[in-house]
Amino acid sequence: MNSATLTISSKNYSSWSLRGWLLTKFAGLPFAEKIISPDDPAMRAELLLLSPSFLVPCLTHEGIKVWDTLAIGEYLNEIKPEAHLLPEDRMKRTHCRSICGEMHSGFFALRSALPVNLKGDFPNFKVWERAQADIDRIAVIWRNCLTSYGGPFLMGERSMADAMYAPVVTRFLTYHVTLDSVCSAYCQQIIAMPEMIEWTEAARLEPEEIVELDAEF
Amino acid sequence: MNSATLTISSKNYSSWSLRGWLLTKFAGLPFAEKIISPDDPAMRAELLLLSPSFLVPCLTHEGIKVWDTLAIGEYLNEIKPEAHLLPEDRMKRTHCRSICGEMHSGFFALRSALPVNLKGDFPNFKVWERAQADIDRIAVIWRNCLTSYGGPFLMGERSMADAMYAPVVTRFLTYHVTLDSVCSAYCQQIIAMPEMIEWTEAARLEPEEIVELDAEF
Repeated sequence: MNSATLTISSKNYSSWSLRGWLLTKFAGLPFAEKIISPDDPAMRAELLLLSPSFLVPCLTHEGIKVWDTLAIGEYLNEIKPEAHLLPEDRMKRTHCRSICGEMHSGFFALRSALPVNLKGDFPNFKVWERAQADIDRIAVIWRNCLTSYGGPFLMGERSMADAMYAPVVTRFLTYHVTLDSVCSAYCQQIIAMPEMIEWTEAARLEPEEIVELDAEF
Repeated sequence: MNSATLTISSKNYSSWSLRGWLLTKFAGLPFAEKIISPDDPAMRAELLLLSPSFLVPCLTHEGIKVWDTLAIGEYLNEIKPEAHLLPEDRMKRTHCRSICGEMHSGFFALRSALPVNLKGDFPNFKVWERAQADIDRIAVIWRNCLTSYGGPFLMGERSMADAMYAPVVTRFLTYHVTLDSVCSAYCQQIIAMPEMIEWTEAARLEPEEIVELDAEF
C-alpha cells in the first residue's frame, strides 16, 4: 500500500511534473501517481493563470501536503536523508541549492521559447537571443559543477540538481541546441537514467488531447 | 569585523534584494552590504537578460558563496537555527517551504504588472485580470496561514515566509490593492517591523538614477 501520492500533469509537456516525479523516484519513496484531468475547468483555469505550482507537482504523504518543486525536494531530503538529494558537505549543499534556486526562479526566456515536448524534434529551431543567454548561463553552471566535482552528475553523485535540470536536458535535445562536449555528455547521462527512460516512454504513449494543459508559466 | 557580505541592488525597486536582506537580518547574521553599481555594463546586461538570481541577492560568508533567495534562506537557517527562519514542526516547516516556493517560482503577472516601488503611490491603479488572480491566490495563502497559526506572522512566529512575501506587501500598499481585514492587518504587521522601516527609509534616500536597474524578471 502506498501512503504517498504525487499529483502531476502531462508527462510530455510538464517540466515541473517531471522534476517532482524524479525527486520522488530519486528519494526512493513509493508513490501513486495522480494525473490531473484535462477536463477539469478549475485545473485548466489555474494552469492557464500561470500559477501551476500549487497544483502540480503536489505530494501528499502521511497527512502532509507539500507543493512546489523545491519544497518537495527539501521534504524528501528530510524524510529520506539516505538518498542524498542534497549533498552532505555544507559548501556543496549550498552550491546545489543555489543552482536549483536559479532554475526554479529563472530562465524564463528559455522556458517560454523552448517548451518541454518529449515527443517533439526540431532540428532547425531558431533560438531567440534571450533564450541563448539562458542556455549560455546554464552551460556555465553545468561546466562549473561537472569540472569541480568530477561528474557524472552535477554534484558528483546524483542530487536534487539533476532533477531540476532534467527538463532542460530534454529541451536541449528536442531543439538540437548546440553544446560543448562536457554539457553534451551530461545530457546523455541524464537521458540514460532508468527513471528518465520510464518517464519518456510514458510521455510517448500520452494521448494528444492533453496538449492544452501545457502551461509551465 | 563582518565576515558576511550581502550583494544587493536597488532598495527602492528590487524585491529580491529586499527578501535576501530581510532573511539575513532575521537570522541575526551581521553583514556588510555591497550595492551593485548601476554603471557596470555586465551587471546591467545580466539584469536585463532576466536572470538576476545569480547576482542579486548573493551572500558570501566564511568562504561560501550562496545566491538565489531560497538558497540563502536555507543556508541561514542551517547556520542560525536559533532564528527559526523555518518552523521546527515538520508539517509547518513543509507548509512554510511550499508557500515560499510558490512565491519564488510564480506570480509573474503580479510581479510584472505591479513592480516594487517603495517611493511610489498609485491610488487609482488598474489591476490587470491576471494580476488580480495572483492577488486572490496570495490572499488565500495568507488567510489560510494567519487563521491556522493565529498570526501575527504567516507561520505564527516570524519566518522565511514573511521575508518572501514582504515585497508583495509593499506592492499592495503602493498600488492600493483592496484586501480583507485579515490581509490588511498582516500588511501593517510587516511594514511596522523595524527592519522594514530601516529598508524603506534607505529606499527613500536612494538616488533616482538607479531606476534602470529595476529588473525583477
